[in-house]
Amino acid sequence: MKLLNSIQQPSDLRLLPREDLPLLSKELREFIIDIVSAKEGHLGASLGVVELTIALHYVFNTPHDKLIWDVGHQAYGHKILTGRRQLFDTNRQLGGLSGFPKREESEFDAFGTGHSSTSISAIMGMALAAKLKGDTEREHIAVIGDASIASGMAFEGLNHAGVTDANILIILNDNAIGIDPSVGALKKYLTNVKKGTAKEENIFECLNFEYSGPVDGHDMNAVLNALQQMKELRGPRLLHLITTKGKGLLKAEENQITYHAPGKFNKVTGELVAATNEGLPPKYQDVFGHTLVELARENQKIIGITPAMPTGSSLKFMMEIFPDRAFDVGIAEQHAVTMAAGLAVEGMIPFCNIYSTFLQRAYDQLIHDVALQNLPVIFCLDRAGLVGQDGATHHGVYDISFLRCIPNMVIFAPMNEAELRNIMYTAQNGIDHPLAIRYPRGRGVIPSWRTPFETISVGTSRMLAEGSSIAVLSLGHIGNKVVEILEGLQHPAAIGHFDMRFAKPLDLEQLHRIFNKYKIIVTLEDGCIIGGFGSAVLEFANTHEYKNKIKCLGLPDVFIEHGTVEELQSIGHIDEASITNCLTKFLDEVS
Amino acid sequence: MKLLNSIQQPSDLRLLPREDLPLLSKELREFIIDIVSAKEGHLGASLGVVELTIALHYVFNTPHDKLIWDVGHQAYGHKILTGRRQLFDTNRQLGGLSGFPKREESEFDAFGTGHSSTSISAIMGMALAAKLKGDTEREHIAVIGDASIASGMAFEGLNHAGVTDANILIILNDNAIGIDPSVGALKKYLTNVKKGTAKEENIFECLNFEYSGPVDGHDMNAVLNALQQMKELRGPRLLHLITTKGKGLLKAEENQITYHAPGKFNKVTGELVAATNEGLPPKYQDVFGHTLVELARENQKIIGITPAMPTGSSLKFMMEIFPDRAFDVGIAEQHAVTMAAGLAVEGMIPFCNIYSTFLQRAYDQLIHDVALQNLPVIFCLDRAGLVGQDGATHHGVYDISFLRCIPNMVIFAPMNEAELRNIMYTAQNGIDHPLAIRYPRGRGVIPSWRTPFETISVGTSRMLAEGSSIAVLSLGHIGNKVVEILEGLQHPAAIGHFDMRFAKPLDLEQLHRIFNKYKIIVTLEDGCIIGGFGSAVLEFANTHEYKNKIKCLGLPDVFIEHGTVEELQSIGHIDEASITNCLTKFLDEVS
Repeated sequence: MKLLNSIQQPSDLRLLPREDLPLLSKELREFIIDIVSAKEGHLGASLGVVELTIALHYVFNTPHDKLIWDVGHQAYGHKILTGRRQLFDTNRQLGGLSGFPKREESEFDAFGTGHSSTSISAIMGMALAAKLKGDTEREHIAVIGDASIASGMAFEGLNHAGVTDANILIILNDNAIGIDPSVGALKKYLTNVKKGTAKEENIFECLNFEYSGPVDGHDMNAVLNALQQMKELRGPRLLHLITTKGKGLLKAEENQITYHAPGKFNKVTGELVAATNEGLPPKYQDVFGHTLVELARENQKIIGITPAMPTGSSLKFMMEIFPDRAFDVGIAEQHAVTMAAGLAVEGMIPFCNIYSTFLQRAYDQLIHDVALQNLPVIFCLDRAGLVGQDGATHHGVYDISFLRCIPNMVIFAPMNEAELRNIMYTAQNGIDHPLAIRYPRGRGVIPSWRTPFETISVGTSRMLAEGSSIAVLSLGHIGNKVVEILEGLQHPAAIGHFDMRFAKPLDLEQLHRIFNKYKIIVTLEDGCIIGGFGSAVLEFANTHEYKNKIKCLGLPDVFIEHGTVEELQSIGHIDEASITNCLTKFLDEVS
Repeated sequence: MKLLNSIQQPSDLRLLPREDLPLLSKELREFIIDIVSAKEGHLGASLGVVELTIALHYVFNTPHDKLIWDVGHQAYGHKILTGRRQLFDTNRQLGGLSGFPKREESEFDAFGTGHSSTSISAIMGMALAAKLKGDTEREHIAVIGDASIASGMAFEGLNHAGVTDANILIILNDNAIGIDPSVGALKKYLTNVKKGTAKEENIFECLNFEYSGPVDGHDMNAVLNALQQMKELRGPRLLHLITTKGKGLLKAEENQITYHAPGKFNKVTGELVAATNEGLPPKYQDVFGHTLVELARENQKIIGITPAMPTGSSLKFMMEIFPDRAFDVGIAEQHAVTMAAGLAVEGMIPFCNIYSTFLQRAYDQLIHDVALQNLPVIFCLDRAGLVGQDGATHHGVYDISFLRCIPNMVIFAPMNEAELRNIMYTAQNGIDHPLAIRYPRGRGVIPSWRTPFETISVGTSRMLAEGSSIAVLSLGHIGNKVVEILEGLQHPAAIGHFDMRFAKPLDLEQLHRIFNKYKIIVTLEDGCIIGGFGSAVLEFANTHEYKNKIKCLGLPDVFIEHGTVEELQSIGHIDEASITNCLTKFLDEVS
């Protein structure tokens, strides 16, 4: 019987003799590889912290001692050791385990994570609470990577913690990579520390932390000893561990970016299962990435910016070809946006690519530095709408609402690859306002997507089908569902369909025509219903005293968990069935 | 004739012999004190950088060389030396100079500021633009205080800049105070640097900056020499200046918090002009501050948190009495919110006080760390709505829209002191969701405000007047205007008035009653019209297919500049006259 199978809880783990732990590491790695190779998910990060995970639960008294995994991609081993081994094959599936730590799931998940660099602040709150309750013994541990600790929020946490006597232990999991390789001056500095070429005083000591390390994070004894040592101290401490992302699977060690979340692969060789993408439409991210290169060849003023997502955003294509004009600034959304503003002031044309959910990190910068100064920064918001298996922390469903209320903002959602290309083309030719282009995770609809560029006039929509009494006003890619549904219904003469494209400014002329002609208006968006595109239409109708019936389809006012996009759309009532039901009901009404 | 009067532009300044500059400093200080003592505004910050301001424009070739003042409180001297001396008595008035640097105002204002810690990112963008244009000579200077450089966003900028060869010069204006004294580990470290007790390697050198200093920022020769030296270098550099906030006016040096923005004072002695506040209602911030102490005496779980605004938020009262339970975390809104989440997880009751405009800095943390986990964090959003003279950068007018779209959020706006006290009382007794309490800058309406506590049921409104055909639904303090107007109109029987209090959840029962009874509905809020409380009412009406006439009063979709609150309300059509016009028009319609 495997050691791993004897462990239901960390209390079982603590019964093992110390010399068994390397074997347990091996088994845990195999278990992770086994499941992720078949079920997909995040691989490299968890493989890199197998020894650390075991050692933490061995040395510390979890869940009494609090443990937070920053971001949480690396927490698979933690989940497996804390009562979720048998459920682990449901990871990231609807109703199954979340791909990230989650409080509802287990008392061992002290704090839900997903976005980076929150762990130091959260653990500080817990440590202060313990102190106020008179508990000076409880330990508070945050495990954070070298890419995440370089984000501003983490610095704020360190800066506060360093002047308290809060009982916190930061484990810096230094593998020199986030999803893409780490960047920045701190990374450079950490490299010097590892080489032994840094000078005497340590940057963390400057911030009043007790520093220890660097320690080989794959040497179980070294990790255990280091944790034991740290456990005996009190106050703010930082342990610097050196690990290898993907450790234990050669291909994952060699190709750390690919094996961050590799999809299905051969669990022995690591070979990826060849995907059969031929003939499929491209991913929107690649349309962005390749189109930007195409435009940047002609327009020297174009700059590309990504906060730590060169691969995920496909900005990497521009970074390869025009390294002087495309920047990965690290996990630094705030800096990315205001730097884009500085570039725009000087006449450059910055395309700032940020996942919709991460733009929430730079909301003030967008308002205060970009929109208030009315600078023509182009925001490309990838992963807008429901994102699927990454779940509630990652859905990009609030952007229309939180951008629409900001003066000067223009908000566009392409329905297909051509629309994305055309708005990018239009934008780099010069715009009068900041522009947000939101597009979903996943593929478009046009396999031959390299269409010639056309200019899009700001605030104009497209009529896709004229009808007599029901007008469907869709925003963005989800409009393709309407096209399919209307085909399925054999193009009912009553139903018109409009690709509204701009959530702001609205196409007022088209709207007046629609409200004068159609009795019933249906709005559809892949975003939250409160304050979104549908609400914009309601505001329009109210201002002009139209009394048409309006039905707004959009995501309800709840956090939607993980599952396939289709499953989640169904939960959110914006799936094919829900839309069809809505339309056939109205068809009955008007016939 | 004074030297100062001979300077229209920095080019005039550069004609002066170096030995005249101390005299010019003296004149510039007197000029600032003269005007601010009579016209009010920010004082201490600008007095502290008089030598630096003169030296920067003397040594560098502004506006060709780019100069950004972080936050901008300290830029009065800069404005006076750059063509705005004769306009300076219009500072912060409607149509006059802005209290902050502003691009529209002068080519010498390279980037608009107001919120802290943006300058490094913005100057980085400009420096990169220069490099791409082949200009390796142009200098890019950001002046940033020690409180602002400790904010996460500034760290992100430094972290990126340190691995580039961008031509940027950061001037760290170290006076150990922001608006309130600086806090945090970095501040402690800088103090060690000043004392000479820091070890060899410098934290900025760790980040790959060329460091120089510390230099006495009031020794004109020393400052000139240091700048000259820095000018000869290239790449990322940091000059550490030690200055005294309020320098040159004894009372301002001694009472740096009070003299940050002292109101009117005697320009010779510095004595404050005694304010005649007797019998006036209290400021909302003080109702918050004193009520929190009152509640914290009884409830040991209450924690107070402010990001660098102990005085402005009046959290200082709790910090004085319960220093272990009230925290100034520095300019670190992100950390403040997630730390509050960590405290809430452990059963504490965090009151996180953040100005509405600065909550924009912690939007993701509010969504991802608080709302998603449905933690009962209490956000007290001071300075919500139009704030007056601080202008466009500081109005807190988007919060209702950007909070309303987030699941689990409860949003409350008190109409008076009693409502604020009661919601605070209710919240600390236990709530099921995160709660945002938004209240304006300035005074309430109840001079005897220490009313007994009552519980407020979430999602309930108050009927203030029953009517027959026109219902005014107001949210928060601005409802007092309606009360006055209705009194002025001698309580027309047609008009009902409802203090809706909760922007979310809405009082559905009351709304159904209103929509069934009243023909015309008027909504009123001190916030942006798009996506706000009025839109919530539109969404409600649409969902339930009510066809009543609805008129939404709220701020139009433009950035509103500086002026008195009354002037700005008039511009935004939410002043007494606009509301009265709206109501009398409807009275005509229904009579």
